Parts: sequence; C-alpha cells; structure tokens
Amino acid sequence: VKGLESLIEHILQGGVHGLFVLGTTGEGPGLGHATKDKVVRRVCEQVNGRVPVLVGITNSSMEESLLMSERSTKAGADAAVLAPPPYFSTLPSELVDYVEMVAARCPIPIFLYNIPGNTKVTIGWSTVVTTSEIPGVIGYKDSSGDMVDLHKVLQKTANRENFSIMIGREELLGEALIWGVDGGVVGGANIFPRLYTALFEAARQHKVKETQRLHNIAMDVSRSFYELDSSSVGYIKSTKAYLALMGICKDYMTPPFKRLEPAQKTILEKRFRELDLDSSIGG
Amino acid sequence: VKGLESLIEHILQGGVHGLFVLGTTGEGPGLGHATKDKVVRRVCEQVNGRVPVLVGITNSSMEESLLMSERSTKAGADAAVLAPPPYFSTLPSELVDYVEMVAARCPIPIFLYNIPGNTKVTIGWSTVVTTSEIPGVIGYKDSSGDMVDLHKVLQKTANRENFSIMIGREELLGEALIWGVDGGVVGGANIFPRLYTALFEAARQHKVKETQRLHNIAMDVSRSFYELDSSSVGYIKSTKAYLALMGICKDYMTPPFKRLEPAQKTILEKRFRELDLDSSIGG
Amino acid sequence: VKGLESLIEHILQGGVHGLFVLGTTGEGPGLGHATKDKVVRRVCEQVNGRVPVLVGITNSSMEESLLMSERSTKAGADAAVLAPPPYFSTLPSELVDYVEMVAARCPIPIFLYNIPGNTKVTIGWSTVVTTSEIPGVIGYKDSSGDMVDLHKVLQKTANRENFSIMIGREELLGEALIWGVDGGVVGGANIFPRLYTALFEAARQHKVKETQRLHNIAMDVSRSFYELDSSSVGYIKSTKAYLALMGICKDYMTPPFKRLEPAQKTILEKRFRELDLDSSIGG
Amino acid sequence: VKGLESLIEHILQGGVHGLFVLGTTGEGPGLGHATKDKVVRRVCEQVNGRVPVLVGITNSSMEESLLMSERSTKAGADAAVLAPPPYFSTLPSELVDYVEMVAARCPIPIFLYNIPGNTKVTIGWSTVVTTSEIPGVIGYKDSSGDMVDLHKVLQKTANRENFSIMIGREELLGEALIWGVDGGVVGGANIFPRLYTALFEAARQHKVKETQRLHNIAMDVSRSFYELDSSSVGYIKSTKAYLALMGICKDYMTPPFKRLEPAQKTILEKRFRELDLDSSIGG
Repeated sequence: VKGLESLIEHILQGGVHGLFVLGTTGEGPGLGHATKDKVVRRVCEQVNGRVPVLVGITNSSMEESLLMSERSTKAGADAAVLAPPPYFSTLPSELVDYVEMVAARCPIPIFLYNIPGNTKVTIGWSTVVTTSEIPGVIGYKDSSGDMVDLHKVLQKTANRENFSIMIGREELLGEALIWGVDGGVVGGANIFPRLYTALFEAARQHKVKETQRLHNIAMDVSRSFYELDSSSVGYIKSTKAYLALMGICKDYMTPPFKRLEPAQKTILEKRFRELDLDSSIGG
Repeated sequence: VKGLESLIEHILQGGVHGLFVLGTTGEGPGLGHATKDKVVRRVCEQVNGRVPVLVGITNSSMEESLLMSERSTKAGADAAVLAPPPYFSTLPSELVDYVEMVAARCPIPIFLYNIPGNTKVTIGWSTVVTTSEIPGVIGYKDSSGDMVDLHKVLQKTANRENFSIMIGREELLGEALIWGVDGGVVGGANIFPRLYTALFEAARQHKVKETQRLHNIAMDVSRSFYELDSSSVGYIKSTKAYLALMGICKDYMTPPFKRLEPAQKTILEKRFRELDLDSSIGG
Repeated sequence: VKGLESLIEHILQGGVHGLFVLGTTGEGPGLGHATKDKVVRRVCEQVNGRVPVLVGITNSSMEESLLMSERSTKAGADAAVLAPPPYFSTLPSELVDYVEMVAARCPIPIFLYNIPGNTKVTIGWSTVVTTSEIPGVIGYKDSSGDMVDLHKVLQKTANRENFSIMIGREELLGEALIWGVDGGVVGGANIFPRLYTALFEAARQHKVKETQRLHNIAMDVSRSFYELDSSSVGYIKSTKAYLALMGICKDYMTPPFKRLEPAQKTILEKRFRELDLDSSIGG
Repeated sequence: VKGLESLIEHILQGGVHGLFVLGTTGEGPGLGHATKDKVVRRVCEQVNGRVPVLVGITNSSMEESLLMSERSTKAGADAAVLAPPPYFSTLPSELVDYVEMVAARCPIPIFLYNIPGNTKVTIGWSTVVTTSEIPGVIGYKDSSGDMVDLHKVLQKTANRENFSIMIGREELLGEALIWGVDGGVVGGANIFPRLYTALFEAARQHKVKETQRLHNIAMDVSRSFYELDSSSVGYIKSTKAYLALMGICKDYMTPPFKRLEPAQKTILEKRFRELDLDSSIGG
C-alpha cells in the first residue's frame, strides 16, 4: 500500500495528465478481483480528482469486465479501458458486438485497447473506426507498435470530436504525437514521468530536434532496461526493479512471475547510473 | 438450470467415465466467478459421486484460479484442470513455477491442460514431464492436436504410475487410445457420448477395424458440425445447436458470442439426419 | 559424389520402395540449379529403375520449378514433388491455380507436398481434395504433423484410385499407416532404412504391438538425434553427422548452415551406442 | 519489354534517386533466372548511369544468389539487395554467417533487406548492427513496418559512415525520414514517383506540416489501391493495374498469380479519379 502511494505521488509530480491503473504494466489481468477492487479504491481516493483515473477492465469473461466497471465507477474512476477478451478470440464483427454490449452497460466511458502481444487479437483500423461510433466509446489506446495501422486510424477518425487516440509504446511516442495522437499511456512514465511529459510538450509543438533528443533518451531507457529479461513480463520486472532502486516501491511481482535476479539488478543499476537521466532531460 | 440437468443425465447415460465442467467447450473462461460457482455446485450435487467431476480453473489471474479451486473443493469436485494463464504468457520455466505454486495450494489434484489455440502458450513435452513430478499433479489433457509431441510425453511418462494422459481432440481419440493414452475428454461427447465410449472400448482392445469404423463416424461429426461457423467458438455453437435440436438444452452462448444463424441451423439439421448416427454406431 | 553413391546403396539395401531426392532433408531448396541437375542425373543413373525416383521441384519461381521438372524428366525421374512456393504466399485458390499450371506443363506426375514449417503455407484438406482431381497429380506428402487434417484428407480421398498419400513425419508413421496412408517419406530412412521398412510392414498388417515397439525406437531416434541443435536444419545436421559416423558420407552442410559442433557429435555418438539400434530392431 | 522501358522513364522523370529491380514489388523471387538476367541487363542499359541500380538477389539457395550477384555485376548494377533465404529459416547467428559468406563473394556492395511478411524471418536490430560491420555491406532496407525496431537500428548505427538506412513502407516514409533514415524504397513510387520525392524533400527539411500533407495523400493511395485484393501480392496487382490504366505497362502478373478482376479495376479507376493526385501534390 505504501509503495502504491509513493508511486502515485512520484508519477503525479512528473506532471502526467492522467493515470491508467490495472493495465498491462500494472499487471491488472494477473490480479484477483478482490485485489483489483482494493487498488482502484485506494488510487481514486488518493488522486482525488487531480487527474483522470482510467481503469483496466479486460477479462476473458464479459461478466467480470462489467463487474469491474461497476466497482470502478463506485470508486470514482473516470473511464474504463477494454482490450479484446483473451482465451476465446473474437473475429472483428464479434469484437464490435463485444464493445457494444460492454458499452451499453458500463457506467463510465470506455477506451478501446489494442495490445495483441497479450490478447493475441489484433484490432485493425476498420474495427477501431466502427467502434468509435458506439456511444460511450471515447478513445483508443494502441500498444500494437503498428504505425501503418495507426496512421489509418488517425486519418479515418480525424474529423471525429470526443474521440482520443493514445499511443501505448513509448518508443513511438514522439512520432505519434507529431502525427497527431492525443497523448501517450506509456509504462516508462512510472519510472521517469518527467521525460515523457517533456517529450509530449516538444512533440505537440512540432519541435522536431528537441523531440528527437528526448526520444533518444526514451530509446536508451527502452534498450537498457526492458531487454534485461526474456520473460513476457520482463519490462515490468525492470520497471519495478528500477522503482525499488529509487526507493519508491518494492519489486514484488504478481505470481507466478518472479522479480529480477540479483545479477540482473546489478546490470540495471549500472545502466541507470550511466544514463544519468536527470541531467540529460534538463538538456 | 434445467438444460444443465438434462445435459448431465444425457452424458452419463452415454456411459462416460467422468465429467469435465467449465472447460473450453463449457465456456468456463467466459463466465464470471458467481456463475462458475453455481455451475460447479449444481453439477457436483447432481452427479453425486456417480463419476468423478473435474473443474476448469484456468484464469489470467492465479489468485482467481486458487479461489476457484477452493470453491470446487467445497462443492465436492474431484480434480481441477489448469491451463497456462492467458494474457501474460509464461516461458516453460515460469509455467513450471506456476503449476508448482497452484498445486501447493489447490486442495484437490490437478490435471495440466494444453490448449494453445486458446491460451496461445504451447506446453511442450519436456514441461509436461517436469510438471508430472510435482505433488498433486495427476494428469495431462492434450488438446493441441500435436501427436508428435504427445508421443514424446507418452514415452517419457510411460513408467509413471498415477499420471493419466487424456486426449482432447476427438479426431485423434482412436489412435491416441491405441497408442496408450488413458482416455479422452472430448467436446463431442456432449452430443453423442455413446459414440466415444464405444470408440474408447474398441481402441483399448486394439480392435483396429472397429476403432476405425467409429473414428470415421467421429470424423463425419467433426466435419459436418464443427466447420459450420468460422468463429473461434464455432464448434461450441454447433454443439449447442445440436443439443437444442435434440431438446436437451438451449443454444444460448455466453456473450459476446451469438448462437448459430437460422440458415446454419438448417444445414446442421440436414447433416444430422444424413449421418443417422444411431444406426451407424450400432454397427 | 562418392558419399551420394554409398548413401543410395545404403538406403536401397534397407528395403525402401522409392527415393525422394532434393526434398527438405536433401536440402533441395538450398542448392543451385546446376547442383540440383547433377544430383538428379547421378541418382537416376545409379538407381537405374530399381525403385521409383521422386524429385523435389519446389521453388519461389514457377519458371524454375518447371525447368527442374523438365531436367528431372530427362534424367529419368518418375515423379516430381511440389510444395507451395515460398516468398509469395498463395491463398488456397491461388495454390490450386498453381498446381494446375505446373501439372499442365510438367512431363511427369506430381506429388503435392505440405510442409508449412518451411514454406509457411499450410495446405488444408479441402485444397488437397481439390488438387487431387487435377490430371497429373498422383499423390500427397504430408509433413505438417497435423493428424486431424490428414484424417480429413484420408476420408475425403478414400474412394480415389491412383492417388497416394504419404506421411512425412516418422513419429507419425505407425498410426498413419495403420489408418491407411500408402507409405512414408521420412528423413530417418536415410540413417536407418530397415527400421522404417519394418515399421511399414508391421503397421500395414495391423500388428499393433509390433508397430508400437518399432515406433518407440523411431521416437528414440527422433528425440536423441533431432533435438541436438536448435537450427531449423538441426535434424539435417544430425542426420548427416550420423551418416558420417557410419562412414557413409561427409557431414558437409549447404551454406550458410554449418555441421554439428564436435561437442554435439560426441553426444550423438554416445546416444547412438546407447540406442543399439541393430539389436533392437531385430526384436 | 516496352512496358519496362516506359516504366523506367516514368519513374526517372519522377525524380527518384535510384532504382531497385527484382525486389518484392518487382516480383523478383517469382521469376526464373533467365528472365531475371534479361531484366537486369535491360534496366542497366537503359538507365545508363543516370541513377544507381540495385538488384534483388534473394533466393532460397545461396548458390543462386551468388550467381545472380555476378550477373548483376556484369550488367553494370551498383548494389545487390539481400533478404534472408526463404524455406530454410536462419537463426540470427546463421543469418550473420550468411551475410558474411555472400558479402565475401559478391562483387558489388550489399544492402540487407528485412521483409518478414515474405521471408518469414525477422531481422532484429542487433543483427542489423552486427552485419553492418561486415565489409561490403553498405545499407539496410526495412520493410517490416516495425518502427520500434528501426529506432534501435538508427540509434545504434548513428555514428556509422557509409551505412545507409532505407525505409520500405511508404506509409512510414514521412516519420522515418524526419527521424533520420537516408531514404525510401517504396512500391508506390512506381505509380507516382513525384509524390514520394516531394515527401522526401519535405521530411528531410523537417517541414512537418507539408510532410503530413503529402503523407496523407500517400495514405490515401495505400488504402485506396492496396486493399482491393486479399492476395499476398494484392498490392502488386493494384500497382500494375494502375500502371496499365495510365498506359505505362501491362498488368500481367507472374504465375500463378492473376491480374485484378474487371470489377476490381473499375473500383480502382473510380478511386484514382477521386484522388486527383496531380492537383493534390501540387498543393
């Protein structure tokens, strides 16, 4: 609990414009519903309206996703984030049905979430365009890494008001922002929020050189930290190990996954020093 | 509820040696925990020890899987069936960790369940062999369709007592039984249990011609019914439509999936008549 | 050349009923057309009608496949073996077009060859059934390892005369033969032809126990030799290293691939001694 | 031949800085060696040094790739473009071996070519970095669409002189150029070279708005033309149909692939008129 509190303050002080809890980096789908409920309530209480709180409600069961959306609403969350259900894969038309059914019963607005690396379902641009017209659907978070598809989404939703597009891969934040996405929801902001808020500002103002300078630091972070461990949750391990190193929270992982090995942490620490992020960002 | 009751009696009258509830055909991962709880309690009550009851506890959250194993134990289930968690994919060593952690806390014995079409994680033979040594793990259900890998499992666990190997694809039931697997857990047994129990007996006695005759009927069922709908749950739709045709239960699907279209049902009904299963099986 | 000669005599003495040259184990697609031409001519000359010779003509270019079919015909080959072209993947209907176009111009009969591990195109059962009706197409070799699909092929081509079905995975040879395929084209027959001809005879006569005994030896070979090296051509390396050990030919690999490392060869040699195949097969 | 001549003049008049023949859009891997040889000789003769000519030498056989590199050299080509061999997939270390072996014997410099959609082998950034140090390797063409990986390549080869990075997806041309790649090798330049040369100039000068304006036209072209046909060569069919529409060359496809159906061509023609590219580009 203490770790969660200090993590939230750390992130908010970095100037972020919103919080996404129980997403992928937040290990949402790995937690039980009791734990999820507790996390959402604590976060909403602590944030207390300073920024919007988005809650991941992805589940292989629609019934559970809807339960989670109700709990989130009660806790005071601002929006729900919904990826295609894992286990039973949906065809594009089934996915549209799914979003319609959830949106009809979810008390808060919904962001559609494309993260095929985890769900094993790719939401293509035409499905995004179709679901963007469903009442209650207010945005799209793309963590697929597929910029070609994202360009199609951007072009086809350009005239749509009240539909936000967020990029979920920090390595693409710069170019996606220059190209017109509304923001980023990036795991690295847990570690170094100020880097990504600075990148956001530079890119939005089409300051190409400054965007690239900050992007290069983000790439250093990506390569230095995220490739330490070959597990599918390797980057989450590194993120937590890093936060532990800064004294913000413990590096405990939701079972069955294990924290980084001591030898990996030593490498992480060494790279962390070499990067010297604080002075780099200052420019 | 009524449909569940008559389905169970239908299956038990077909001579099956056990029941697997909340598996893939049972749409387990699509149901919420309240519904799952209710299903397990009713089934255990009704079966009342006539055959063993196995319960699917697969979940992207280990916490939820453990909760489900406790509820199943209280309801009187005999074993839990566990597939790799979807969403956060496990490496082989992480999967072994996972099975160890669950087995240490699950009050009833565990079957490992390989169904990469849904979990997107393939359990290879060497992982099966390693997990077969974990206390509490009593068997393996293979729905991968990969007979080469299954042969390796069979050879490497040949001398292990108290470890059962079940085949999950009815199209492979005949050869797998001839080759020494202990049984089958096949979706088609919901429809026509007597076909698969007859196939079981023939194959176990190495009556090759009779096994092939029954296998060919099982293949007719597979081709005639399962390929009607291109959804990932198409074969579940067909199974339910068929049961509705026989007046056993409704063909309602867990959302977001929808039942077969009327036109598809007409084809199903026509094929059902052509197959004339009752007289075929009699031989 | 000498190695090729002694390899052919070794295989023919093992009692095989045909030779497939320039297939996958024969590294066909890795050789240039001049080398391929030389191999086909030498093999046909040496075999001199003792058994049929089949030649792999798979190529990303149809023009090249047709050239190879002409050269093979001139050399005296009995049939051509054709897999879907790699590089430009074909849809099922395009694959049917492809087979039609090749068959119309190929002077010798054609076997269709399903090996998705290499071509990255899966030939499904309905495409096999459609192509089986094309004049000039006389058979199907399935190296996919997908027994469910093969059962559909078997059932749907059961009444077709002059269409042979061959299994390409030695780990499935026993059950496929019991189930009615016409033969096997297996890499392991390069090493130990007598094992697979014995397995063929036992399975065709539905001697289940004897088939399983020999199958278990084939599985030992598979696990002991083929998993030594993680390269996509690892099993070819092991096959060649084994033949070199027996003094039959060199273990030279077509570039860019390299032969087994000395340490791997030492393991191979040890396993070879432990298996003691000669006395095992004798029974 | 006439079509090839007018196509080349059409492209050169569009201001391109080089020509890549026998690539993917050029159907290189689908042609036989005699045809390839003829194409290379004619193109080199006609271009006659006005721009550099690059030749695709990708083949499942290294022997054939080397033959093609010799023929290209004789014809006067400036560089060879090499993708991983299809059919026998290479591990990263094997791919490095492969590039080393080819580079040692190829008389002209080599571009490494990443096109996993066709070769089914992904060249990761670290392999690019390793191969970039091999003598004779002078550049990298990335058609993977994976901008995250490309950013790692860019960062890690930033200080390397004489190593060019080209982007192969026209939908990513704008951002890749802004981010520092050296150029694009894009299929769309066959149709409308002036669009892509204008995009190139704008992006290189960091004129973000103008780059986006031209990028949006390129996206229109992509969506309007490339998604007409579901074949893996669908975009090649559309490209040729478009060129036929403009009277530049025939829309003949290398077998087994077929040209667009008349109904598809009608749609193409309609979209072509709607786009009114000439006036759009002029701005």
